[in-house]
Amino acid sequence: MTTRRTIRRYTARDIEPELLNRLLTEASRTQTMGNLQLYSVIVTRSAEGKAALAPAHFNQPMVTQAPVVLTICADFRRTTTWARCRQANPGYDNPLSFMNAATDALLFTQTFCNLAEDAGLGLCFLGTAIYNPQAIIKALQLPQLVFPVAALTVGWPAEEPPLTDRLPVESFVHDERYHDPTPEDINRFYAAKEALPENLEFVRINKKETLAQIFTDIRYTRKDNEFLSRNFIEALRQQGFMDYEH
Amino acid sequence: MTTRRTIRRYTARDIEPELLNRLLTEASRTQTMGNLQLYSVIVTRSAEGKAALAPAHFNQPMVTQAPVVLTICADFRRTTTWARCRQANPGYDNPLSFMNAATDALLFTQTFCNLAEDAGLGLCFLGTAIYNPQAIIKALQLPQLVFPVAALTVGWPAEEPPLTDRLPVESFVHDERYHDPTPEDINRFYAAKEALPENLEFVRINKKETLAQIFTDIRYTRKDNEFLSRNFIEALRQQGFMDYEH
Repeated sequence: MTTRRTIRRYTARDIEPELLNRLLTEASRTQTMGNLQLYSVIVTRSAEGKAALAPAHFNQPMVTQAPVVLTICADFRRTTTWARCRQANPGYDNPLSFMNAATDALLFTQTFCNLAEDAGLGLCFLGTAIYNPQAIIKALQLPQLVFPVAALTVGWPAEEPPLTDRLPVESFVHDERYHDPTPEDINRFYAAKEALPENLEFVRINKKETLAQIFTDIRYTRKDNEFLSRNFIEALRQQGFMDYEH
Repeated sequence: MTTRRTIRRYTARDIEPELLNRLLTEASRTQTMGNLQLYSVIVTRSAEGKAALAPAHFNQPMVTQAPVVLTICADFRRTTTWARCRQANPGYDNPLSFMNAATDALLFTQTFCNLAEDAGLGLCFLGTAIYNPQAIIKALQLPQLVFPVAALTVGWPAEEPPLTDRLPVESFVHDERYHDPTPEDINRFYAAKEALPENLEFVRINKKETLAQIFTDIRYTRKDNEFLSRNFIEALRQQGFMDYEH
């Protein structure tokens, strides 16, 4: 783990289906709710499939360049179909069940990431999956009770970028109860990040006063977050996960 | 991964703070949104702390028996405080930002699980964290923009339970697009699980017709899911993550 980095450029070498299958099978040892495995993985290898997904991920080049794109979905559909085939009355069309399935899907995703990186593969986690769920749902023909929560581009590394910074462990670990950070704590936690040459340069070329403003004014703005929140709730409703106010 | 199992019973041996800190630090290499690390971990070692958390986890005995309980939270508070200290205007009090932070928290959690199990520790993932968030928020004094999404009991294993079953990989991996399972697919996917002696016994003693009914009628009922959904949304509102309808 201490040497891992996100990889966005890949060689032309394909990923053998046997290797991918083995990693997905091993990742499925991850614990899940009631051992129900409330997730699905859509494997995109075709050029047409990647082209259809790319706009949903803001056309980031690794989506079409990677040999494999994985879209990991919260999936209560298979379990619901199983129940319907077995004289059982499923009730998983609600936000709590979505969170249960999203949890299963994300834990599974991260075990896959750890195993794949351990096997020498390079990965880029695309958080954009929940920004444009409707486009992904359409491209992958996801039915009700299936919702994309993560996407990964996977391939053999063609780059070795420098390690990125991390906050000190004391900034995110709390003993016994939550300790609200003071302004002095904040200075200590973020000093190294704010002093990085690339971050200073980022602030300068964007004509901002502070690094935090890069995040609040450019990368993750209130306006975008509120628009994407409405879109996300609407997509949850469309996929049948908002039927709970009885 | 192929030999991991959930561990619910632990020896009296403590977990050295140095070991726990090292594992948490290594787990923080996991990728996060904008490298913001939108999570916090509350470490509970005290008997009083565990006793306060136990009811939130339906008094499952491992909560008070384990040397350490970790509560992992989606945390946009530290980032928001940072922004406020740096003349930046944060807008992370909305459901999309909650999902971003929950994603970071869950991916971090699973890397920690993989590293801790690799170091010989035994873990039980408590999905109950999102069932009773209010009780956990109160016990750990979680402020606005901090929300518990996972809990783990951690200790040195005092048991080696048998490996649990998993669905065949073809049940959750789809090529290029989602393939809705047919009744024949369902029979094939669930045959091994339904034939397990412990599951047959479970169905018999509960006087049910099928294993699926154990899940829909007893373990995860529509009534409970709908109640817990309302409770979950209310807790998100209380923690300041539902302010987005502008």
